[in-house]
Amino acid sequence: MITTNGYAAQKGEHTVSPFTFERDPPKGNEMLIQVLYCGICHSDLELLENNWGITKYPCVPGHEAAGRVTSIGPEVTKFAVGDIVGVGCMIDSCLQCQACKEGWENHCEGPNGPTMTYSGYLSPGDKEAAEYNTFGAWSDNLVVREEFVVKIPENMPLEEAAPLMCPGTDTFGPMRRFGDLSGKRIAILGLGGPGHMALQFAKAMGAEYVAVVSTHAAKRDAAFQLGADEFIVSTDADQMRSFAKSFHHILSTIPVPFDLAHYLALLRRRGTITVMGLLGPYKSILNNIDLAARGLSLTGSMIGSVAETKEVLDFCQKHSISPLVEVIDKKDINQALERLRVADVRFRFVIKIAE
Amino acid sequence: MITTNGYAAQKGEHTVSPFTFERDPPKGNEMLIQVLYCGICHSDLELLENNWGITKYPCVPGHEAAGRVTSIGPEVTKFAVGDIVGVGCMIDSCLQCQACKEGWENHCEGPNGPTMTYSGYLSPGDKEAAEYNTFGAWSDNLVVREEFVVKIPENMPLEEAAPLMCPGTDTFGPMRRFGDLSGKRIAILGLGGPGHMALQFAKAMGAEYVAVVSTHAAKRDAAFQLGADEFIVSTDADQMRSFAKSFHHILSTIPVPFDLAHYLALLRRRGTITVMGLLGPYKSILNNIDLAARGLSLTGSMIGSVAETKEVLDFCQKHSISPLVEVIDKKDINQALERLRVADVRFRFVIKIAE
Repeated sequence: MITTNGYAAQKGEHTVSPFTFERDPPKGNEMLIQVLYCGICHSDLELLENNWGITKYPCVPGHEAAGRVTSIGPEVTKFAVGDIVGVGCMIDSCLQCQACKEGWENHCEGPNGPTMTYSGYLSPGDKEAAEYNTFGAWSDNLVVREEFVVKIPENMPLEEAAPLMCPGTDTFGPMRRFGDLSGKRIAILGLGGPGHMALQFAKAMGAEYVAVVSTHAAKRDAAFQLGADEFIVSTDADQMRSFAKSFHHILSTIPVPFDLAHYLALLRRRGTITVMGLLGPYKSILNNIDLAARGLSLTGSMIGSVAETKEVLDFCQKHSISPLVEVIDKKDINQALERLRVADVRFRFVIKIAE
Repeated sequence: MITTNGYAAQKGEHTVSPFTFERDPPKGNEMLIQVLYCGICHSDLELLENNWGITKYPCVPGHEAAGRVTSIGPEVTKFAVGDIVGVGCMIDSCLQCQACKEGWENHCEGPNGPTMTYSGYLSPGDKEAAEYNTFGAWSDNLVVREEFVVKIPENMPLEEAAPLMCPGTDTFGPMRRFGDLSGKRIAILGLGGPGHMALQFAKAMGAEYVAVVSTHAAKRDAAFQLGADEFIVSTDADQMRSFAKSFHHILSTIPVPFDLAHYLALLRRRGTITVMGLLGPYKSILNNIDLAARGLSLTGSMIGSVAETKEVLDFCQKHSISPLVEVIDKKDINQALERLRVADVRFRFVIKIAE
């Protein structure tokens, strides 16, 4: 067994504290990865607080990690000890179902769905699986099947690579799904970890015009520095009205339930809004007239596939895109969580786990 | 003025009775069209009963007409007296806005939106426009701007051409929007006027497998006769479960609000459900998890564009597709409305207005 030091929330706690646990050593095509950096995601808050009702305790968060391979199972073929790698939201899946075979492990249709990097199975299956609890990357190491590990390009700073595993990948996929962005007008709702990546992707993919829509007027300057063409304060009714029917596509990175109709008004005819995240129920009941009258679409999106994770790393290197991060010490995680609760981060906290 | 005999519902009535009114003669590029056949749409019921709160009275329904040009305005260039033509849900639009210029008159963004063939402006604008009330094709004639008139191919029976103007066009557009259907599994919700067209389109467009989902088990044989590969009774929980995650795309033609989650379960990962019609609010609040967990999309759809109307006529001629109609006499409209209320029609009532 591998004795591992990490940080966990116990049931009923909204903070983490040091927690020591055991991992099985890597077998088959699993690898032991020393975690060097790991980001803090808004979903970590949701899971710590069990807001989705699926959290298993103790809860060791962390699903956007950069690290170093320190030991490999006997069947590993694609990696070697010493490789610098990333791990995202999944560490395993059935790899047998049609979704997995077609490269959508994130939509694995095996009995328990993909194995999430922490807090076990999001789709509960048999009793044994339902009791299983994975421990994430706010810890010294991870054990991950090689299919779920990606190589980090040389020269990419690891504290910047880590967030590409989650907010990078999770915004890259929906943006690609919009299709060719040339000549298109795009709005990004929310300018946090995912939003500030989505903004950079939209510009790099050739969108004609990209607006950031945020409740936080103080983020205006940062939006323009990151390449935005416009900044819209979502609570400013006049400004919102002036952008009615303006955008071909909207990507929402708002991490909490909201009023969909408020933003549908911004879409052009036949436009699409993609809403990221397991938000739960919308704030009001959807009226099909709001979609039908102008032929609008609503798409839901969650985590990306492994292939998308690889693609986002290449894309970021090619286009010199990187997340803006605030690196923190392990002892300051709870303070960072407090600041994240009030959106006080530009734009991603990354925990330095080791050198 | 042109004295016209039609059938109208007065406020508070759910039936129609003979009603005589005056139309302005055609001016500019308008044409006078003698109505020969006109279909009965489920939305006629909704409008007669003012279920959408937008009905103007007297209400002369009829928005899927086949007829003959009997007189043309001085600026008409594309038609001549004697032409056999069709008119759908619109008779005018601003033709100046970006939507109109790009061929989406159905999404006209002029002050009052497109001019609906009957019951005036669906999108209320200035007071004068809001008071305007158009009278539809359950009458001897229509006056329509030529841009909103399509030629009916020779040899196409007019009673079969009429329904192509509404259920034909309105299902053809969404089916095209799904993209290439080769190898795709499609479900059609509802087997009425629109559903029985959508089924034929899906097969002709190359879908690998098309299922009809209906509450009416008695429609099973008809579904197979029209080319369906499967018939699913939507209230049969076991059968519904056996088709979970089966379909790439679903087109809903259900004309009343329903429980979206019940049908989202049928979609494959990253699948799309398009819901036709101004249904109003869904029966339950949408949970974004239901879309996000499997990357699903929901699209709303209403009436088609003029270009789509032309395309559907060509497509039907090329692929020998026609609606199944039950032609009725003018005096039997109210009886047909009663039967339509209980879905007792295979599959479209068409009123014979004149020879």
